Amino acid sequence: MRPKAVVLLSGGLDSTTTLAQAIADGCEPTAISFRYGQKHTKELVSAENVCKHYGVAHVVIDLNLSSFRSALTRKDIDVPMDREGKLDEDIPITYVPARNIVFLSIAAGLAESIDADRVYIGANAVDYSGYPDDRPDFFKAYEEMLAKGTKAGVEGHPVKIMTPLLHLSKADIVRLGKELKAPLELTWSCYNGGEKACGHCDSCRLRLEGFRQAGYKDEIPYEDGVVQ
Amino acid sequence: MRPKAVVLLSGGLDSTTTLAQAIADGCEPTAISFRYGQKHTKELVSAENVCKHYGVAHVVIDLNLSSFRSALTRKDIDVPMDREGKLDEDIPITYVPARNIVFLSIAAGLAESIDADRVYIGANAVDYSGYPDDRPDFFKAYEEMLAKGTKAGVEGHPVKIMTPLLHLSKADIVRLGKELKAPLELTWSCYNGGEKACGHCDSCRLRLEGFRQAGYKDEIPYEDGVVQ
Repeated sequence: MRPKAVVLLSGGLDSTTTLAQAIADGCEPTAISFRYGQKHTKELVSAENVCKHYGVAHVVIDLNLSSFRSALTRKDIDVPMDREGKLDEDIPITYVPARNIVFLSIAAGLAESIDADRVYIGANAVDYSGYPDDRPDFFKAYEEMLAKGTKAGVEGHPVKIMTPLLHLSKADIVRLGKELKAPLELTWSCYNGGEKACGHCDSCRLRLEGFRQAGYKDEIPYEDGVVQ
Repeated sequence: MRPKAVVLLSGGLDSTTTLAQAIADGCEPTAISFRYGQKHTKELVSAENVCKHYGVAHVVIDLNLSSFRSALTRKDIDVPMDREGKLDEDIPITYVPARNIVFLSIAAGLAESIDADRVYIGANAVDYSGYPDDRPDFFKAYEEMLAKGTKAGVEGHPVKIMTPLLHLSKADIVRLGKELKAPLELTWSCYNGGEKACGHCDSCRLRLEGFRQAGYKDEIPYEDGVVQ
Protein backbone atom coordinates (compact mmCIF):
# COMPACT_ATOMS: atom_id res chain seq x y z
CA MET A 1 0.00 0.00 0.00
CA ARG A 2 1.28 3.45 -0.90
CA PRO A 3 1.95 5.75 2.09
CA LYS A 4 -0.57 8.57 2.34
CA ALA A 5 0.63 12.16 2.17
CA VAL A 6 -0.97 15.57 2.52
CA VAL A 7 0.45 18.10 0.04
CA LEU A 8 0.06 21.85 0.53
CA LEU A 9 -0.91 23.06 -2.92
CA SER A 10 -1.25 26.77 -3.65
CA GLY A 11 -1.42 26.22 -7.39
CA GLY A 12 1.96 27.84 -7.97
CA LEU A 13 5.10 26.49 -9.58
CA ASP A 14 6.73 25.31 -6.35
CA SER A 15 3.79 23.48 -4.78
CA THR A 16 2.88 21.83 -8.08
CA THR A 17 6.43 20.53 -8.46
CA THR A 18 6.21 19.35 -4.84
CA LEU A 19 3.04 17.40 -5.61
CA ALA A 20 4.80 15.83 -8.60
CA GLN A 21 7.66 14.86 -6.24
CA ALA A 22 5.24 13.30 -3.71
CA ILE A 23 3.79 11.18 -6.52
CA ALA A 24 7.30 10.28 -7.73
CA ASP A 25 8.11 9.26 -4.14
CA GLY A 26 5.34 6.67 -4.36
CA CYS A 27 2.83 8.44 -2.11
CA GLU A 28 -0.94 8.58 -2.39
CA PRO A 29 -1.46 12.34 -2.03
CA THR A 30 -4.35 14.43 -0.77
CA ALA A 31 -3.85 18.05 -1.79
CA ILE A 32 -4.95 20.87 0.53
CA SER A 33 -5.48 24.50 -0.46
CA PHE A 34 -6.74 27.54 1.41
CA ARG A 35 -9.18 30.28 0.59
CA TYR A 36 -7.75 32.71 3.14
CA GLY A 37 -8.80 36.10 1.87
CA GLN A 38 -6.31 36.37 -1.00
CA LYS A 39 -6.97 39.32 -3.30
CA HIS A 40 -7.61 36.90 -6.15
CA THR A 41 -8.34 33.19 -6.46
CA LYS A 42 -6.44 32.43 -9.69
CA GLU A 43 -4.05 30.25 -7.69
CA LEU A 44 -6.97 28.18 -6.38
CA VAL A 45 -8.26 27.59 -9.89
CA SER A 46 -4.76 26.48 -10.87
CA ALA A 47 -4.62 24.15 -7.85
CA GLU A 48 -7.90 22.60 -8.90
CA ASN A 49 -6.69 22.13 -12.47
CA VAL A 50 -3.45 20.52 -11.26
CA CYS A 51 -5.43 18.09 -9.07
CA LYS A 52 -7.67 17.20 -11.99
CA HIS A 53 -4.59 16.63 -14.13
CA TYR A 54 -3.27 14.10 -11.62
CA GLY A 55 -6.66 12.78 -10.45
CA VAL A 56 -5.82 13.42 -6.77
CA ALA A 57 -8.18 14.35 -3.93
CA HIS A 58 -8.35 18.09 -3.20
CA VAL A 59 -9.48 19.64 0.08
CA VAL A 60 -10.09 23.41 0.08
CA ILE A 61 -10.28 24.99 3.52
CA ASP A 62 -12.02 28.33 4.02
CA LEU A 63 -10.13 30.42 6.50
CA ASN A 64 -10.70 34.15 6.69
CA LEU A 65 -7.42 35.77 7.71
CA SER A 66 -8.36 39.14 6.27
CA SER A 67 -8.00 40.78 9.67
CA PHE A 68 -4.28 39.96 9.49
CA ARG A 69 -1.94 42.71 8.37
CA SER A 70 -0.51 41.91 4.95
CA ALA A 71 -0.39 43.20 1.40
CA LEU A 72 -1.59 39.82 0.12
CA THR A 73 -4.85 39.96 2.02
CA ARG A 74 -5.57 43.68 2.49
CA LYS A 75 -6.81 45.76 -0.41
CA ASP A 76 -5.40 48.95 1.10
CA ILE A 77 -1.75 47.83 0.79
CA ASP A 78 -0.16 47.58 -2.67
CA VAL A 79 1.93 44.65 -3.87
CA PRO A 80 5.50 45.91 -4.42
CA MET A 81 6.54 46.00 -8.09
CA ASP A 82 10.04 45.94 -9.66
CA ARG A 83 11.76 46.30 -6.32
CA GLU A 84 15.43 47.26 -6.39
CA GLY A 85 18.10 45.11 -4.81
CA LYS A 86 18.16 41.49 -3.70
CA LEU A 87 14.76 39.91 -3.25
CA ASP A 88 15.69 38.26 0.03
CA GLU A 89 17.04 41.37 1.74
CA ASP A 90 14.17 42.02 4.11
CA ILE A 91 11.00 40.36 5.26
CA PRO A 92 8.64 41.83 2.67
CA ILE A 93 5.26 43.46 3.15
CA THR A 94 3.67 40.42 1.45
CA TYR A 95 4.52 38.35 4.56
CA VAL A 96 1.32 37.00 6.16
CA PRO A 97 2.01 36.55 9.89
CA ALA A 98 2.42 32.86 10.69
CA ARG A 99 0.87 31.80 7.36
CA ASN A 100 2.96 28.69 6.78
CA ILE A 101 2.59 27.86 10.48
CA VAL A 102 -1.19 28.00 10.17
CA PHE A 103 -1.26 26.06 6.88
CA LEU A 104 1.10 23.38 8.18
CA SER A 105 -0.97 23.01 11.35
CA ILE A 106 -4.18 22.39 9.44
CA ALA A 107 -2.37 20.07 7.03
CA ALA A 108 -0.91 18.13 9.98
CA GLY A 109 -4.38 17.82 11.51
CA LEU A 110 -5.76 16.55 8.22
CA ALA A 111 -2.83 14.11 7.96
CA GLU A 112 -3.66 12.66 11.37
CA SER A 113 -7.33 12.44 10.39
CA ILE A 114 -6.68 10.39 7.27
CA ASP A 115 -3.70 8.44 8.67
CA ALA A 116 -1.18 10.13 6.40
CA ASP A 117 2.33 10.01 7.80
CA ARG A 118 3.77 13.05 6.05
CA VAL A 119 3.00 16.57 4.88
CA TYR A 120 4.73 17.99 1.80
CA ILE A 121 5.37 21.72 1.51
CA GLY A 122 7.07 23.46 -1.39
CA ALA A 123 9.14 25.86 0.68
CA ASN A 124 12.58 26.82 -0.50
CA ALA A 125 15.25 28.67 1.37
CA VAL A 126 17.40 29.74 -1.58
CA ASP A 127 15.33 32.00 -3.80
CA TYR A 128 12.77 32.54 -1.06
CA SER A 129 11.51 36.08 -0.47
CA GLY A 130 12.58 36.40 3.14
CA TYR A 131 9.70 34.66 4.90
CA PRO A 132 10.93 33.32 8.25
CA ASP A 133 8.63 30.29 8.00
CA ASP A 134 10.47 29.10 4.88
CA ARG A 135 13.73 28.40 6.71
CA PRO A 136 15.28 24.98 7.45
CA ASP A 137 15.55 25.46 11.21
CA PHE A 138 11.90 26.46 11.33
CA PHE A 139 10.81 23.14 9.76
CA LYS A 140 12.98 21.21 12.21
CA ALA A 141 11.40 23.08 15.14
CA TYR A 142 7.97 22.48 13.62
CA GLU A 143 8.52 18.72 13.41
CA GLU A 144 9.70 18.66 17.03
CA MET A 145 6.57 20.53 18.09
CA LEU A 146 4.36 18.00 16.23
CA ALA A 147 6.21 15.13 17.91
CA LYS A 148 5.20 16.58 21.31
CA GLY A 149 1.73 17.88 20.55
CA THR A 150 -0.10 15.29 18.44
CA LYS A 151 -1.53 11.86 19.12
CA ALA A 152 0.59 10.39 16.31
CA GLY A 153 3.62 12.09 17.84
CA VAL A 154 3.16 10.82 21.40
CA GLU A 155 2.44 7.38 19.96
CA GLY A 156 5.90 7.46 18.38
CA HIS A 157 5.08 8.08 14.73
CA PRO A 158 4.85 11.87 14.32
CA VAL A 159 3.81 13.34 10.99
CA LYS A 160 6.92 14.28 9.02
CA ILE A 161 7.31 17.57 7.16
CA MET A 162 8.75 16.94 3.69
CA THR A 163 10.47 19.91 2.02
CA PRO A 164 11.90 18.53 -1.23
CA LEU A 165 12.55 22.00 -2.68
CA LEU A 166 14.21 23.45 0.40
CA HIS A 167 17.71 23.74 -1.01
CA LEU A 168 16.82 24.22 -4.67
CA SER A 169 17.08 27.48 -6.58
CA LYS A 170 14.12 28.56 -8.68
CA ALA A 171 15.97 27.30 -11.77
CA ASP A 172 16.49 23.90 -10.07
CA ILE A 173 12.76 23.78 -9.28
CA VAL A 174 11.85 24.45 -12.92
CA ARG A 175 14.28 21.68 -14.00
CA LEU A 176 12.84 19.27 -11.42
CA GLY A 177 9.26 20.10 -12.43
CA LYS A 178 10.10 19.53 -16.11
CA GLU A 179 11.90 16.27 -15.29
CA LEU A 180 8.88 15.01 -13.31
CA LYS A 181 6.54 16.14 -16.09
CA ALA A 182 4.65 18.41 -13.66
CA PRO A 183 1.96 20.46 -15.48
CA LEU A 184 3.77 23.78 -14.98
CA GLU A 185 1.66 25.35 -17.72
CA LEU A 186 -1.35 25.04 -15.38
CA THR A 187 0.30 26.90 -12.48
CA TRP A 188 -0.06 30.53 -11.42
CA SER A 189 2.52 32.54 -9.50
CA CYS A 190 1.69 36.24 -10.10
CA TYR A 191 0.68 38.18 -6.98
CA ASN A 192 -1.71 40.22 -9.11
CA GLY A 193 -4.87 38.57 -10.39
CA GLY A 194 -4.97 39.72 -13.99
CA GLU A 195 -5.89 37.51 -16.92
CA LYS A 196 -2.19 37.29 -17.78
CA ALA A 197 0.75 37.28 -15.36
CA CYS A 198 2.11 40.81 -14.79
CA GLY A 199 5.78 39.90 -15.08
CA HIS A 200 6.82 42.59 -12.58
CA CYS A 201 5.86 41.49 -9.05
CA ASP A 202 8.47 39.65 -6.96
CA SER A 203 6.82 36.32 -7.69
CA CYS A 204 6.76 36.81 -11.49
CA ARG A 205 10.35 38.06 -11.49
CA LEU A 206 11.58 35.00 -9.59
CA ARG A 207 9.62 32.67 -11.83
CA LEU A 208 10.80 34.26 -15.08
CA GLU A 209 14.41 34.22 -13.91
CA GLY A 210 14.04 30.56 -12.92
CA PHE A 211 12.74 29.51 -16.33
CA ARG A 212 15.41 31.63 -18.06
CA GLN A 213 18.26 30.11 -16.05
CA ALA A 214 16.89 26.60 -16.50
CA GLY A 215 16.67 27.11 -20.23
CA TYR A 216 12.93 26.52 -20.59
CA LYS A 217 10.15 28.68 -21.95
CA ASP A 218 7.41 29.48 -19.42
CA GLU A 219 4.18 28.53 -21.15
CA ILE A 220 1.75 30.58 -19.10
CA PRO A 221 0.48 33.82 -20.69
CA TYR A 222 2.26 37.06 -19.73
CA GLU A 223 1.23 40.65 -20.34
CA ASP A 224 2.50 42.18 -23.60
CA GLY A 225 6.04 43.47 -23.36
CA VAL A 226 7.22 41.02 -20.70
CA VAL A 227 10.56 39.59 -21.86
CA GLN A 228 11.00 35.88 -21.11
CA MET B 1 0.77 51.49 27.81
CA ARG B 2 -0.67 48.07 28.63
CA PRO B 3 0.92 45.16 26.72
CA LYS B 4 -1.43 43.67 24.14
CA ALA B 5 -2.42 40.02 24.43
CA VAL B 6 -4.44 37.59 22.33
CA VAL B 7 -6.57 35.26 24.48
CA LEU B 8 -7.99 31.99 23.12
CA LEU B 9 -11.55 32.05 24.40
CA SER B 10 -13.82 29.05 23.89
CA GLY B 11 -16.43 30.37 26.30
CA GLY B 12 -15.75 27.64 28.83
CA LEU B 13 -14.67 27.83 32.45
CA ASP B 14 -10.93 27.54 31.78
CA SER B 15 -10.58 30.06 28.97
CA THR B 16 -12.79 32.58 30.78
CA THR B 17 -10.63 32.31 33.88
CA THR B 18 -7.60 32.72 31.62
CA LEU B 19 -9.05 35.93 30.17
CA ALA B 20 -9.63 37.18 33.72
CA GLN B 21 -5.97 36.39 34.49
CA ALA B 22 -4.75 38.26 31.39
CA ILE B 23 -6.69 41.31 32.56
CA ALA B 24 -5.35 40.88 36.09
CA ASP B 25 -1.83 40.71 34.58
CA GLY B 26 -2.41 44.21 33.22
CA CYS B 27 -2.83 43.26 29.56
CA GLU B 28 -5.11 44.77 26.93
CA PRO B 29 -6.69 41.58 25.58
CA THR B 30 -8.18 40.68 22.22
CA ALA B 31 -10.19 37.46 22.52
CA ILE B 32 -10.24 34.97 19.65
CA SER B 33 -12.79 32.19 19.16
CA PHE B 34 -13.34 29.64 16.41
CA ARG B 35 -16.39 28.39 14.59
CA TYR B 36 -14.78 25.13 13.51
CA GLY B 37 -17.71 22.83 12.87
CA GLN B 38 -18.61 22.14 16.50
CA LYS B 39 -21.89 20.26 16.92
CA HIS B 40 -23.30 23.25 18.78
CA THR B 41 -22.37 26.91 19.19
CA LYS B 42 -23.40 27.43 22.83
CA GLU B 43 -19.75 27.95 23.73
CA LEU B 44 -19.46 30.73 21.16
CA VAL B 45 -22.49 32.51 22.60
CA SER B 46 -20.87 32.23 26.02
CA ALA B 47 -17.60 33.62 24.65
CA GLU B 48 -19.47 36.59 23.23
CA ASN B 49 -21.24 37.21 26.54
CA VAL B 50 -17.97 37.03 28.44
CA CYS B 51 -16.39 39.56 26.06
CA LYS B 52 -19.36 41.89 26.48
CA HIS B 53 -19.06 41.53 30.27
CA TYR B 54 -15.44 42.72 30.10
CA GLY B 55 -15.83 45.06 27.11
CA VAL B 56 -12.95 43.41 25.24
CA ALA B 57 -12.51 42.99 21.46
CA HIS B 58 -13.63 39.61 20.13
CA VAL B 59 -12.48 38.05 16.85
CA VAL B 60 -14.39 34.97 15.65
CA ILE B 61 -12.62 32.94 12.96
CA ASP B 62 -14.59 30.62 10.69
CA LEU B 63 -12.62 27.47 10.04
CA ASN B 64 -14.35 24.37 8.76
CA LEU B 65 -12.52 21.36 10.19
CA SER B 66 -15.50 19.05 9.77
CA SER B 67 -13.48 16.78 7.50
CA PHE B 68 -11.30 15.99 10.52
CA ARG B 69 -12.05 12.81 12.42
CA SER B 70 -13.47 13.60 15.84
CA ALA B 71 -16.54 13.14 17.96
CA LEU B 72 -16.68 16.89 18.58
CA THR B 73 -17.08 17.75 14.93
CA ARG B 74 -18.67 14.66 13.34
CA LYS B 75 -22.35 13.94 13.88
CA ASP B 76 -21.85 10.22 13.30
CA ILE B 77 -19.64 9.72 16.39
CA ASP B 78 -21.24 10.00 19.84
CA VAL B 79 -19.76 11.96 22.73
CA PRO B 80 -18.80 9.45 25.46
CA MET B 81 -20.98 9.66 28.59
CA ASP B 82 -20.26 8.58 32.19
CA ARG B 83 -17.01 6.88 31.22
CA GLU B 84 -15.53 4.52 33.76
CA GLY B 85 -12.02 4.98 35.13
CA LYS B 86 -9.67 7.94 35.20
CA LEU B 87 -10.48 10.66 32.74
CA ASP B 88 -6.89 11.06 31.63
CA GLU B 89 -6.18 7.41 30.91
CA ASP B 90 -6.27 7.53 27.12
CA ILE B 91 -6.42 10.07 24.38
CA PRO B 92 -10.21 10.27 24.03
CA ILE B 93 -12.33 10.16 20.89
CA THR B 94 -13.16 13.86 21.45
CA TYR B 95 -9.55 14.70 20.47
CA VAL B 96 -9.54 16.91 17.37
CA PRO B 97 -6.23 16.28 15.56
CA ALA B 98 -3.89 19.22 16.08
CA ARG B 99 -6.71 21.48 17.30
CA ASN B 100 -4.71 23.48 19.82
CA ILE B 101 -1.84 23.62 17.33
CA VAL B 102 -4.16 25.13 14.73
CA PHE B 103 -5.80 27.54 17.19
CA LEU B 104 -2.44 28.68 18.63
CA SER B 105 -1.08 29.23 15.12
CA ILE B 106 -3.93 31.50 14.12
CA ALA B 107 -3.76 33.29 17.48
CA ALA B 108 -0.01 33.80 17.03
CA GLY B 109 -0.62 35.21 13.55
CA LEU B 110 -3.24 37.59 14.93
CA ALA B 111 -0.84 38.55 17.74
CA GLU B 112 1.84 39.53 15.20
CA SER B 113 -0.76 41.44 13.20
CA ILE B 114 -1.85 43.63 16.11
CA ASP B 115 1.59 43.82 17.77
CA ALA B 116 0.58 41.71 20.76
CA ASP B 117 3.54 40.08 22.46
CA ARG B 118 1.74 37.12 24.02
CA VAL B 119 -1.01 34.56 23.51
CA TYR B 120 -2.95 33.20 26.51
CA ILE B 121 -4.37 29.70 26.41
CA GLY B 122 -6.34 28.04 29.20
CA ALA B 123 -4.70 24.63 28.90
CA ASN B 124 -4.15 22.58 32.01
CA ALA B 125 -2.10 19.43 32.38
CA VAL B 126 -3.60 18.18 35.66
CA ASP B 127 -7.28 17.49 35.12
CA TYR B 128 -6.85 17.54 31.35
CA SER B 129 -8.56 14.84 29.33
CA GLY B 130 -5.49 13.35 27.71
CA TYR B 131 -5.01 15.75 24.81
CA PRO B 132 -1.34 15.74 23.80
CA ASP B 133 -1.47 19.42 22.89
CA ASP B 134 -2.28 20.33 26.51
CA ARG B 135 1.11 19.22 27.84
CA PRO B 136 3.90 21.47 29.16
CA ASP B 137 6.61 20.16 26.84
CA PHE B 138 4.33 20.80 23.89
CA PHE B 139 3.98 24.49 24.78
CA LYS B 140 7.75 24.80 25.16
CA ALA B 141 8.28 23.22 21.73
CA TYR B 142 5.58 25.49 20.34
CA GLU B 143 7.31 28.65 21.61
CA GLU B 144 10.61 27.47 20.14
CA MET B 145 8.93 26.92 16.79
CA LEU B 146 7.45 30.46 16.88
CA ALA B 147 10.88 31.88 17.71
CA LYS B 148 12.24 30.35 14.48
CA GLY B 149 9.27 30.80 12.17
CA THR B 150 7.83 34.27 12.71
CA LYS B 151 8.99 37.78 11.90
CA ALA B 152 8.68 38.74 15.57
CA GLY B 153 10.72 35.66 16.46
CA VAL B 154 13.62 36.27 14.09
CA GLU B 155 13.63 39.93 15.19
CA GLY B 156 14.27 38.71 18.73
CA HIS B 157 10.89 39.25 20.37
CA PRO B 158 8.90 36.06 19.72
CA VAL B 159 5.27 35.85 20.80
CA LYS B 160 5.10 34.12 24.18
CA ILE B 161 2.56 31.42 25.02
CA MET B 162 1.02 32.08 28.45
CA THR B 163 -0.53 29.07 30.20
CA PRO B 164 -1.58 30.35 33.63
CA LEU B 165 -3.75 27.29 34.35
CA LEU B 166 -1.20 24.69 33.28
CA HIS B 167 -0.50 23.25 36.71
CA LEU B 168 -3.87 23.93 38.33
CA SER B 169 -6.50 21.34 39.12
CA LYS B 170 -10.08 22.05 38.07
CA ALA B 171 -10.84 23.01 41.68
CA ASP B 172 -7.89 25.44 41.63
CA ILE B 173 -9.23 26.95 38.42
CA VAL B 174 -12.67 27.48 39.98
CA ARG B 175 -11.02 29.11 43.00
CA LEU B 176 -8.88 31.34 40.77
CA GLY B 177 -11.87 32.31 38.65
CA LYS B 178 -13.89 33.22 41.74
CA GLU B 179 -10.98 35.17 43.19
CA LEU B 180 -10.59 37.17 39.94
CA LYS B 181 -14.38 37.69 39.80
CA ALA B 182 -14.54 35.98 36.39
CA PRO B 183 -18.15 35.67 35.16
CA LEU B 184 -18.22 31.87 35.51
CA GLU B 185 -22.01 31.92 35.41
CA LEU B 186 -21.78 32.99 31.75
CA THR B 187 -19.57 30.07 30.72
CA TRP B 188 -20.47 26.79 29.02
CA SER B 189 -18.54 23.52 29.28
CA CYS B 190 -20.97 20.73 28.30
CA TYR B 191 -20.02 18.80 25.15
CA ASN B 192 -23.72 18.44 24.36
CA GLY B 193 -25.64 21.48 23.21
CA GLY B 194 -28.84 21.23 25.24
CA GLU B 195 -30.56 24.17 26.89
CA LYS B 196 -29.13 22.98 30.21
CA ALA B 197 -25.78 21.27 30.81
CA CYS B 198 -26.12 17.46 30.73
CA GLY B 199 -23.99 16.77 33.81
CA HIS B 200 -22.73 13.46 32.40
CA CYS B 201 -20.18 14.11 29.63
CA ASP B 202 -16.47 14.25 30.56
CA SER B 203 -16.49 18.03 30.50
CA CYS B 204 -19.54 18.37 32.81
CA ARG B 205 -18.14 15.78 35.21
CA LEU B 206 -14.79 17.57 35.50
CA ARG B 207 -16.52 20.91 35.96
CA LEU B 208 -18.94 19.67 38.61
CA GLU B 209 -16.15 17.97 40.52
CA GLY B 210 -14.08 21.15 40.34
CA PHE B 211 -16.84 23.31 41.82
CA ARG B 212 -17.59 20.66 44.47
CA GLN B 213 -13.96 20.41 45.56
CA ALA B 214 -13.52 24.18 45.56
CA GLY B 215 -16.64 24.56 47.70
CA TYR B 216 -18.63 26.73 45.31
CA LYS B 217 -22.02 26.28 43.72
CA ASP B 218 -21.95 26.20 39.91
CA GLU B 219 -24.55 28.74 38.86
CA ILE B 220 -25.18 27.53 35.31
CA PRO B 221 -28.40 25.52 34.74
CA TYR B 222 -28.10 21.71 34.80
CA GLU B 223 -30.60 19.08 33.72
CA ASP B 224 -32.97 17.86 36.44
CA GLY B 225 -31.46 15.19 38.65
CA VAL B 226 -27.83 16.32 38.27
CA VAL B 227 -26.31 16.44 41.75
CA GLN B 228 -23.95 19.38 42.32
